[in-house]
Amino acid sequence: MTPFWGELIGTLLLIVLGDGVVAGVVLRKSKAENSGWIVIGFGWGLAVAIAVYAVGSISGAHLNPAVTLGMAAIGKFAWDQVPLYIAAQMIGAFLGAVLVWLHYLPHWRATDDQAAKLAVFATAPAIRSTGANLLSEVIATFIFVFSLLAIGGNTFADGLQPFIVGFLIVSIGLSLGGTTGYAINPARDLGPRIAHAVLPIAGKGSSDWSYAWVPIMGPVVGGVLGALAYSFMF
Amino acid sequence: MTPFWGELIGTLLLIVLGDGVVAGVVLRKSKAENSGWIVIGFGWGLAVAIAVYAVGSISGAHLNPAVTLGMAAIGKFAWDQVPLYIAAQMIGAFLGAVLVWLHYLPHWRATDDQAAKLAVFATAPAIRSTGANLLSEVIATFIFVFSLLAIGGNTFADGLQPFIVGFLIVSIGLSLGGTTGYAINPARDLGPRIAHAVLPIAGKGSSDWSYAWVPIMGPVVGGVLGALAYSFMF
Amino acid sequence: MTPFWGELIGTLLLIVLGDGVVAGVVLRKSKAENSGWIVIGFGWGLAVAIAVYAVGSISGAHLNPAVTLGMAAIGKFAWDQVPLYIAAQMIGAFLGAVLVWLHYLPHWRATDDQAAKLAVFATAPAIRSTGANLLSEVIATFIFVFSLLAIGGNTFADGLQPFIVGFLIVSIGLSLGGTTGYAINPARDLGPRIAHAVLPIAGKGSSDWSYAWVPIMGPVVGGVLGALAYSFMF
Amino acid sequence: MTPFWGELIGTLLLIVLGDGVVAGVVLRKSKAENSGWIVIGFGWGLAVAIAVYAVGSISGAHLNPAVTLGMAAIGKFAWDQVPLYIAAQMIGAFLGAVLVWLHYLPHWRATDDQAAKLAVFATAPAIRSTGANLLSEVIATFIFVFSLLAIGGNTFADGLQPFIVGFLIVSIGLSLGGTTGYAINPARDLGPRIAHAVLPIAGKGSSDWSYAWVPIMGPVVGGVLGALAYSFMF
Repeated sequence: MTPFWGELIGTLLLIVLGDGVVAGVVLRKSKAENSGWIVIGFGWGLAVAIAVYAVGSISGAHLNPAVTLGMAAIGKFAWDQVPLYIAAQMIGAFLGAVLVWLHYLPHWRATDDQAAKLAVFATAPAIRSTGANLLSEVIATFIFVFSLLAIGGNTFADGLQPFIVGFLIVSIGLSLGGTTGYAINPARDLGPRIAHAVLPIAGKGSSDWSYAWVPIMGPVVGGVLGALAYSFMF
Repeated sequence: MTPFWGELIGTLLLIVLGDGVVAGVVLRKSKAENSGWIVIGFGWGLAVAIAVYAVGSISGAHLNPAVTLGMAAIGKFAWDQVPLYIAAQMIGAFLGAVLVWLHYLPHWRATDDQAAKLAVFATAPAIRSTGANLLSEVIATFIFVFSLLAIGGNTFADGLQPFIVGFLIVSIGLSLGGTTGYAINPARDLGPRIAHAVLPIAGKGSSDWSYAWVPIMGPVVGGVLGALAYSFMF
Repeated sequence: MTPFWGELIGTLLLIVLGDGVVAGVVLRKSKAENSGWIVIGFGWGLAVAIAVYAVGSISGAHLNPAVTLGMAAIGKFAWDQVPLYIAAQMIGAFLGAVLVWLHYLPHWRATDDQAAKLAVFATAPAIRSTGANLLSEVIATFIFVFSLLAIGGNTFADGLQPFIVGFLIVSIGLSLGGTTGYAINPARDLGPRIAHAVLPIAGKGSSDWSYAWVPIMGPVVGGVLGALAYSFMF
Repeated sequence: MTPFWGELIGTLLLIVLGDGVVAGVVLRKSKAENSGWIVIGFGWGLAVAIAVYAVGSISGAHLNPAVTLGMAAIGKFAWDQVPLYIAAQMIGAFLGAVLVWLHYLPHWRATDDQAAKLAVFATAPAIRSTGANLLSEVIATFIFVFSLLAIGGNTFADGLQPFIVGFLIVSIGLSLGGTTGYAINPARDLGPRIAHAVLPIAGKGSSDWSYAWVPIMGPVVGGVLGALAYSFMF
């Protein structure tokens, strides 16, 4: 398998399991309905861990343009591979979102709340305030990428590191996710938002495109700054 | 111990702890009553981890006909062993369910809700819709078996892999379990459903046989397709 | 440090953290009040993990007469050491309970519910029914000791096994704890029950001595049977 | 990177993620609002794990004056380095709290409860009672430092120990945090309390300075006693 397919499949797995847990918690009549933030936090964290186990040895499992750009910014990843990786991540995220739509098929009609249906696919701020929301995504992604690289500076027994990276995502989600829903990954937000826009989701509302640039720009800035800060300090 | 006994004991452990956590959460007056999806998710995941620790070295710990058939479909397991494994899994699942009935003995009478009592043993869809429910089980089992094989492609420090497999089940449950209760295992559903049908459970209702083929067919199709997809890609 | 002191200190740690989590969840005005079964499950499981890390290399970290007797029954522990181990476990459990009383000192007066105050120290059945309660403790301890030995049959990377044993306790608690509160350990129940009886706990009620033999007898029978079953099968 | 910077960066990470999870749970309109003690417990535990991964190899990752003083008291850390470490921890904790304020910027105005806003930065007792609160911090920190050293007596596969230390913090939080909010770390409480006092937090109230000495004195006494007890016993 090529790195392109690795990133595509890895991001697809990430989004099936990540958007899947949001669907489980927010869609009406789901058995996981209203099971809360601890389920969201562990659901996304384990999604990352599993995707990293699946494709880590093939593509390095960036699964996230903010990671790819951060790595490139500090010379740990070749710039000419960046477009390929980001394309794979976007396609994988879109396809993963399509699978989530199919998996929860009868629940879209059962759910009246259009914001809840969008929330399965894309992030929205708890309090809409462009500057603050952007800052939140910058800070969360800075801490994520900085910590990811710092964790990577350790030696790990075989097979342990992807699990720890998953718990880093649990941590970011529990601690810093309350403001904007921790996109911290442009592909995670934009790919599924496009899926929301094009899929025939029963009773769907707006795809909230006016906000869509925040979870792209914030993670990119935060990720690159986090990588540079790590590189400068360590 | 032979592989037959390994699968039987392993599946028995899986069901004692897996059906047990459902009983704890849904039966009236249980101390774990209404403790929610996070308890269900971790309960089933740890059930799998413990069963794999117990019998992994004896039978490979399939514990699931969808895994056995998927492995056979890609040449990783001998077809002539398949009936033996599935028989052991069915018997173990049935016996595990009997133990759960005994363990929670006074709680059956205390619980009026017949659907809750059946839910301890067998899955039921959140929204009954045959095609969608079947699709849900196919997708969840596809993701499960594909990820299981992909995780298995890694090298693990001694004693780590069963734990990670348990967390894969936590992930599948949290993220994809909300629709049909993630049977993803024909033995896990059919064995205990038979137990529900034959045991003298106080105030029990229907065993819902009309739905019983969905959590058999869905996992078998999804498991085989997941194994084939893994084999094709990796 | 001698094995006697190892068992004493280990069981003390187990009970400080184990009875402590119950106190946090059930006592009035605690910041953890009503935080539910997932907190109880993880609290007890991590209590075991930490105690095993602390004294595993000194005494083997039985921390539980049912484990000590089960090990002796299958020739894995010397019978003449059994009284010493059980004495250390009982003393440690008593002292741990005293520390929990001190730690939560202002909360005893704030809590009116006498059953809740006893629940910090000793188990009580969800539905009082002697035969069924005894059976529940037998089954839970059987599964616990059988799984403990089966897990022990694996090879583990350095420092991993105590963590896995902790998660076994999380599993037993989540899945089988709803009926009698999973004593599964005579010292865990009797030592703190004695502490409840003798300490000047504000507004305390009965120590429920009529039930006290169940969480002694059940775990002893279940633990010995679980060890014998393991020994017979593996 | 020098040990000074290691402690500073590590404590900053600890507080961003630790105070961050409290902000997520207690501030109004946060997506994690009211998600409970399990989120607090895992949030703080993972914060510690990540900080230890980041700077463990640089400074030993004390991140806590009670640990630094405890280690010094038993000859495992040079006394002349103590002031430097404590200064780094205090500065890091202050800066981490500033980042949490920025991250949750619109939520301060949305939250009326002044005690909730203070709770993000500094601990407060569940029941105000100086002697009992001090005793609680002494006991919790004693158990924490004693267990930390006892865990450290084991051999760990590469990269496992920081994770286990994180789970020790989860355990302390779940089991002993209900009384005073488990400061167990003078820098964790004082640094952010100073931040609360000097930052222009919308609608903030008192910084509760009359209580501030308890989460300094209690952890220092408990940490030193815990280290001495460990040293004496093992």
